[in-house]
Amino acid sequence: MKKNLFFAHSGGVTSTLNATAASVIASAQRSSCIDRIYVGKSGILGALHENLLDVTDFSTEDLKSLRHTPSSAFGSCRYKLHDPVKNRAEFQQIMDVFHAHNIGYFIYNGGNDSQDTTLKMHQFSRSIDSPLLCIGLPKTIDNDLAGVDCCPGFASAAKYIATSTLEASLDIKAMYSTSTRFFAMEVMGRNAGWLAAASALAQQTSDQGPHLILLPENPFNPEKFLSSVKKCIQQYGHCVTVVSEGISFQDGKRVSQSNQTDAFGHPQLGGVAPYICGIVRNELQVKHHYAVLDYCQRSAGHLLSSVDLEHSDALGKKAISSLENNQSGIMLGVARIQSKPYQWSIIPVPLSTVANHERKLPPEYIHSNGFHVTQAFKDYLEPLIEGEYHPPYMNGLPSYFSLNTQPIPKKRIPIEELS
Amino acid sequence: MKKNLFFAHSGGVTSTLNATAASVIASAQRSSCIDRIYVGKSGILGALHENLLDVTDFSTEDLKSLRHTPSSAFGSCRYKLHDPVKNRAEFQQIMDVFHAHNIGYFIYNGGNDSQDTTLKMHQFSRSIDSPLLCIGLPKTIDNDLAGVDCCPGFASAAKYIATSTLEASLDIKAMYSTSTRFFAMEVMGRNAGWLAAASALAQQTSDQGPHLILLPENPFNPEKFLSSVKKCIQQYGHCVTVVSEGISFQDGKRVSQSNQTDAFGHPQLGGVAPYICGIVRNELQVKHHYAVLDYCQRSAGHLLSSVDLEHSDALGKKAISSLENNQSGIMLGVARIQSKPYQWSIIPVPLSTVANHERKLPPEYIHSNGFHVTQAFKDYLEPLIEGEYHPPYMNGLPSYFSLNTQPIPKKRIPIEELS
Repeated sequence: MKKNLFFAHSGGVTSTLNATAASVIASAQRSSCIDRIYVGKSGILGALHENLLDVTDFSTEDLKSLRHTPSSAFGSCRYKLHDPVKNRAEFQQIMDVFHAHNIGYFIYNGGNDSQDTTLKMHQFSRSIDSPLLCIGLPKTIDNDLAGVDCCPGFASAAKYIATSTLEASLDIKAMYSTSTRFFAMEVMGRNAGWLAAASALAQQTSDQGPHLILLPENPFNPEKFLSSVKKCIQQYGHCVTVVSEGISFQDGKRVSQSNQTDAFGHPQLGGVAPYICGIVRNELQVKHHYAVLDYCQRSAGHLLSSVDLEHSDALGKKAISSLENNQSGIMLGVARIQSKPYQWSIIPVPLSTVANHERKLPPEYIHSNGFHVTQAFKDYLEPLIEGEYHPPYMNGLPSYFSLNTQPIPKKRIPIEELS
Repeated sequence: MKKNLFFAHSGGVTSTLNATAASVIASAQRSSCIDRIYVGKSGILGALHENLLDVTDFSTEDLKSLRHTPSSAFGSCRYKLHDPVKNRAEFQQIMDVFHAHNIGYFIYNGGNDSQDTTLKMHQFSRSIDSPLLCIGLPKTIDNDLAGVDCCPGFASAAKYIATSTLEASLDIKAMYSTSTRFFAMEVMGRNAGWLAAASALAQQTSDQGPHLILLPENPFNPEKFLSSVKKCIQQYGHCVTVVSEGISFQDGKRVSQSNQTDAFGHPQLGGVAPYICGIVRNELQVKHHYAVLDYCQRSAGHLLSSVDLEHSDALGKKAISSLENNQSGIMLGVARIQSKPYQWSIIPVPLSTVANHERKLPPEYIHSNGFHVTQAFKDYLEPLIEGEYHPPYMNGLPSYFSLNTQPIPKKRIPIEELS
């Protein structure tokens, strides 16, 4: 007997998250095991609050448009389910909602925090002898999931960061003789430096940026950094530095929390690039500028890696076939068979390997000077950013999918009204 | 008798500055009046210090690659020639360099400060009865040149800003229920709000960003702004604000200079987005994020407007034909014939109209609420960002032109050695 599927996004969005969704939906439409396809509005909260979007009848055109649309068309959330022992009501509410809507399949697409949710859902349903099958799908621009070679969303963010660094570096190279000599580009990555490291691909000759890369894996030493900037400016006339938002001092205190106060004297977070520029200016008295890519780096649908899209497609497809084969309690991930020519496959990874773990940049990818990456890292990354997918444009801007679906009628009492 | 051409870039670079250069070079190669084509290394400084790059023999392939390469392949400068009455030696040095290299044609490609140089060169050569012909070509992402409809470089930056705002807005829309509710995107434009205004094209429905646009044409009123943010968050759950780096308070003091001090107590410039986020957080206690596009917005060769490229091509071509027709003392610019369907032409503009003047966003393009633009502005901008040119990619990144040319041997005494 056919059952319905619940699928949802979780955690920070990426530019290929909807591509996986489109693949899940298309594969579920073809599955003989699945009847209706429900997507949770705002992730697991959609299950908890019974906000289910019925996407079963999405057309081929809808799915094509959804595939290249960045962010999450259905909404994502930062919400971690509680410990089922301490808060059983939360899980029971979700199971009741699933029961009311004949949902027998659960796919959760998120990072390491989110796979904790997939694992808890799997464990809870086992503990109550529910036949619910639970599959995790990966995503994160941070590329920090354990047990896999790379995470969907990372390669496109990496391509965007490397392209932006290349272009900004050409800018500064053309202007430094009478203008900016120090430029800092701040990228995401609170604990793992994969994104900052990705900028290295932009450096095609040693005189061109990025000259220095500040990774969260290395404690930030202002004196050593300033000495390297000075040397770089002496040698090349200018210095381009890519800095991870997550860098910390030797004592573990984050640089972003170290220095700034705003107009009202409150500490100002997230100011790594301004801080870096400030210490360079004070020490070297050179003109400086900074860019902060922020959400742009994880939503740049106009600059997608084709390989990333292919991974995202394959993962969605494999999730459905895994459910058809009665699999549960695993996350699917991308494994590398070889780099040249690039070959990969989709593998199952135990959820316990992924949930709440974090894969940092390994030492063999970090240059011995502490301010750059090794050739081994470049060899790792290059195949992932290969190929370009250009979305269609309308009136000069990318044409993205827009959801016009309302949640289906509720069958349960809203959780807010439960005592 | 054939003479040689001197061409140079000036001021902040753009993503279509090299496109005009490619067109100047290709047209000059075909001209019966021009022998060698010299480009000044780092703008007018290349003339002053006799650093001339001979690009006469650039191949069709070189020019094709140069056309889509952002920044300036030859270097630009921020350098304003002095008053010829007070510093005649500077002009005389340039004229001597030109004489030594049989240069009879001068094309200077820059913004309003740079056209002051073109005008002075024209006036000085007239005053000494030199036959030098001087033509100005426009460029600036700021779109603030008087006497023209738009400036090459602006449309591509506008397309990049509108695309980035669209993509970041989709991100926040998907996440705000459990994450960021206020997002600020800082764009360039010290005195004119054309770039910030361009973000408006991203707003396809009223619930989607940019909800508020802070233009330098309007004095910044924190109370009024905070009240609008609050209303926006109440209505849509989140608020996306695009802010021009150049906004000032009622008293004329720039917001970027108003508040920040760094680790050492020095005032921190350029922190408009962090400042805006700071006052929103203090007043409304919501999670906030900001992006600063900085140089990325003027160097995004991966996202060019086809119309911008066509303008840039046409200007380069027209500069050469103007010189062939013995014209001097003018800048060429883009004029609009009609918006729908878009038709345009290249017109001559008196250098005195352009030099040192600044065209701000006219009142009819600013919404009466002070925080957005009018339909008239959208009708103005839409035709300019039409069409996409995708550069070729190699190893996953845009393939850009790289200069391998050294300056030709000097014939003059270096200016540094002149008493």
